Amino acid sequence: MATSATTPNTLLLKNPSIFKPSTSGIHIFPITRATAAKPISIKCSHSATVVAPPTPASAQDRVFNFAAGPATLPENVLRKAESELYNWRGAGMSVMEMSHRGKEFLSIIQKAESDLRKLLDISDDYAVLFLQGGATTQFACVPLNICKPEDPVDYIVTGSWGDKAFKEAAKYCKPNVIWSGKPEKYTGIPAFDELDQNPDARYLHICANETIHGVEFKDYPTPKNKDAVLIADMSSNFCSKPVDVSKFGIIYAGAQKNVGPSGVTIVIIRKDLIGNAQGITPVMLDYKIHADNNSLYNTPPCYGIYMCGLVFEDLLAQGGLVEVEKKNIKKAQILYDAIDESKGFYRCPVEKSVRSLMNVPFTLEKSELEAEFVKEAAKEGMIQLKGHRSVGGMRASIYNAMPLAGVEKLVAFMKDFQAKHG
Amino acid sequence: MATSATTPNTLLLKNPSIFKPSTSGIHIFPITRATAAKPISIKCSHSATVVAPPTPASAQDRVFNFAAGPATLPENVLRKAESELYNWRGAGMSVMEMSHRGKEFLSIIQKAESDLRKLLDISDDYAVLFLQGGATTQFACVPLNICKPEDPVDYIVTGSWGDKAFKEAAKYCKPNVIWSGKPEKYTGIPAFDELDQNPDARYLHICANETIHGVEFKDYPTPKNKDAVLIADMSSNFCSKPVDVSKFGIIYAGAQKNVGPSGVTIVIIRKDLIGNAQGITPVMLDYKIHADNNSLYNTPPCYGIYMCGLVFEDLLAQGGLVEVEKKNIKKAQILYDAIDESKGFYRCPVEKSVRSLMNVPFTLEKSELEAEFVKEAAKEGMIQLKGHRSVGGMRASIYNAMPLAGVEKLVAFMKDFQAKHG
Repeated sequence: MATSATTPNTLLLKNPSIFKPSTSGIHIFPITRATAAKPISIKCSHSATVVAPPTPASAQDRVFNFAAGPATLPENVLRKAESELYNWRGAGMSVMEMSHRGKEFLSIIQKAESDLRKLLDISDDYAVLFLQGGATTQFACVPLNICKPEDPVDYIVTGSWGDKAFKEAAKYCKPNVIWSGKPEKYTGIPAFDELDQNPDARYLHICANETIHGVEFKDYPTPKNKDAVLIADMSSNFCSKPVDVSKFGIIYAGAQKNVGPSGVTIVIIRKDLIGNAQGITPVMLDYKIHADNNSLYNTPPCYGIYMCGLVFEDLLAQGGLVEVEKKNIKKAQILYDAIDESKGFYRCPVEKSVRSLMNVPFTLEKSELEAEFVKEAAKEGMIQLKGHRSVGGMRASIYNAMPLAGVEKLVAFMKDFQAKHG
Repeated sequence: MATSATTPNTLLLKNPSIFKPSTSGIHIFPITRATAAKPISIKCSHSATVVAPPTPASAQDRVFNFAAGPATLPENVLRKAESELYNWRGAGMSVMEMSHRGKEFLSIIQKAESDLRKLLDISDDYAVLFLQGGATTQFACVPLNICKPEDPVDYIVTGSWGDKAFKEAAKYCKPNVIWSGKPEKYTGIPAFDELDQNPDARYLHICANETIHGVEFKDYPTPKNKDAVLIADMSSNFCSKPVDVSKFGIIYAGAQKNVGPSGVTIVIIRKDLIGNAQGITPVMLDYKIHADNNSLYNTPPCYGIYMCGLVFEDLLAQGGLVEVEKKNIKKAQILYDAIDESKGFYRCPVEKSVRSLMNVPFTLEKSELEAEFVKEAAKEGMIQLKGHRSVGGMRASIYNAMPLAGVEKLVAFMKDFQAKHG
């Protein structure tokens, strides 16, 4: 079975120069947080009292949160939200209190959509929808909107999420798994030219990044049927790097990894695919309803959309997704290097060319030490490092908002831990 | 056609004593806001400079928001959320960043459920679910979970929302409208003993309070079929008064009127009704999935649930729903009185015994003045008074969190406006 791509399709290998610190773009690493976390070393003679410079309580208290989602958000975004929570920009109310049809909230959702279009260079051929229910709701929406009950569709299953998407689709059409990574414990991605696609399939579905297994598509397959479309669940690598949206019929993503709090699902859909929902489709799962109403058919998750908008602004201010990807590659690189250079003390099971920039699963050779690893790391303010219950071990999720300092601290901890227990 | 109940089933009429200011219970009226809104009248001789006492900027800036939802939230809840946004109770992160499976968020959702159970005295025979998608998603969930495709069910339609619920159900079972208020422009509620219920109906559905039309059930009908259940959309009067949950099979409500921001839907369902979803039910619309996983099957709308929890705490601190209802009755009473005593200058079309305590629609005899009314009110910091586009006129939504001072200010404005234009 082919478990690796035949072409060097990984950015981790393709462009080593971008591992160097970037000299362009705006960097908003929370320096105060990183330094606050380190012990202050001050040499003093005699018994003079030395007072450490004051650090804001918030910076001292903040943890490095490696959760897989909901996940860490940019500090400056949180500070902005904090400052606007009670009274948004002089409106006399919180965003949480605004009518979704009032001019204030309309300006928020329109700006969020416009900024997302800039970030991903989304053309007018695509609708951008802000929905609810997570990717799991989209597992049903996709076949309900794109297929008739007898239509065949193809799924590439590279992890638990792709598998869930496939199983849900079986309620509404005739899905077929054309490749599964399960026999290899979801550690690879197939070579695209070896895929046995159904020429009549209405779509080809992938999960662009498997959050649990840490497997990420670095390039994308093309549906064999020229009338079919590629559909991707991008929940856990959405807006982590540039993506050529025109290759896809639908991209969908829960916001709670890279772009906001939970409760918002973003759908980017080519407009000609809208309007063919099966008769049994709940009105809230019909893309046409939401597209015709600019995501305001009923009350949307307004505050979550506002938060996504703040994150989009922040990503643009960083220089857009090209710059964001550089940072993500650098963070992932130092973590994977630490694992690979540990002489087997740490192990990442994922095939190197398709390792995720977002979710880094790893195990300890001495698995009996894993609980201690997680516990000791938490004591040092690095939390949520336990692997998903279905795979065990550890997992460090290092989304856009995880600062380099967080990954550096984790790597330093890993080396210390190995020195103690190696 | 019967448009009014035959029994005096309205609390507006039943207990006049509760219109008096309560001397018990905890009252958290934001006095500073009310006083700040009034012009300060100071007599001074000669030319001495008189400086008004300083008012907190927030109190000065805050509007009275009469939106139908999302709607005004309690000021103390917003202040609490503001203070905890960046770092929740020393956890080192925002609630928006917390893993939904971490101990911090589990404590939040468990407390929210426990407090809601206290507020509504919900027995262990019922599950409490925190879902997504609004009441509109429940319009499909209810028949998908409770019926087979051939099952007849009954709908009482007292406004636009009940009508939408009925139409969605037609996709999944055989619904029948056994009473509609449409011929009377949704201004009444039927006498229950005149209802022509289908003895085989699996359930009887009502919308307990019609947000657009301002019609509210003051008592509840009983299904004729003893194996059937009563199901209520309580989105716009949820937690505004005590409710005997044991009369219902399912109560559902979008949070964004009385108990939180948009993006959270609360479902209270009798446990024996769970587990019979039709095969075509999307996994996210299956109550059993959510009940078996304590609302954590996938990532829930964590921040919204946190906000609901803060509101529940606040409602309990006010003395629970008995006290909350007293305040709501008082607010509604002074507003309806102002309308009814205007000698026809203002008119509320709703039959008196079923007028909503939450949503007060009214029109001007001189309809050409309505735009000016809305505009002038906004100038005085009272916003979102325009009626729903489907009915016109004005609507004042006066949910739990609308302070008495807001209604008093509106009533004063109405009298001034009438004096000018009457």
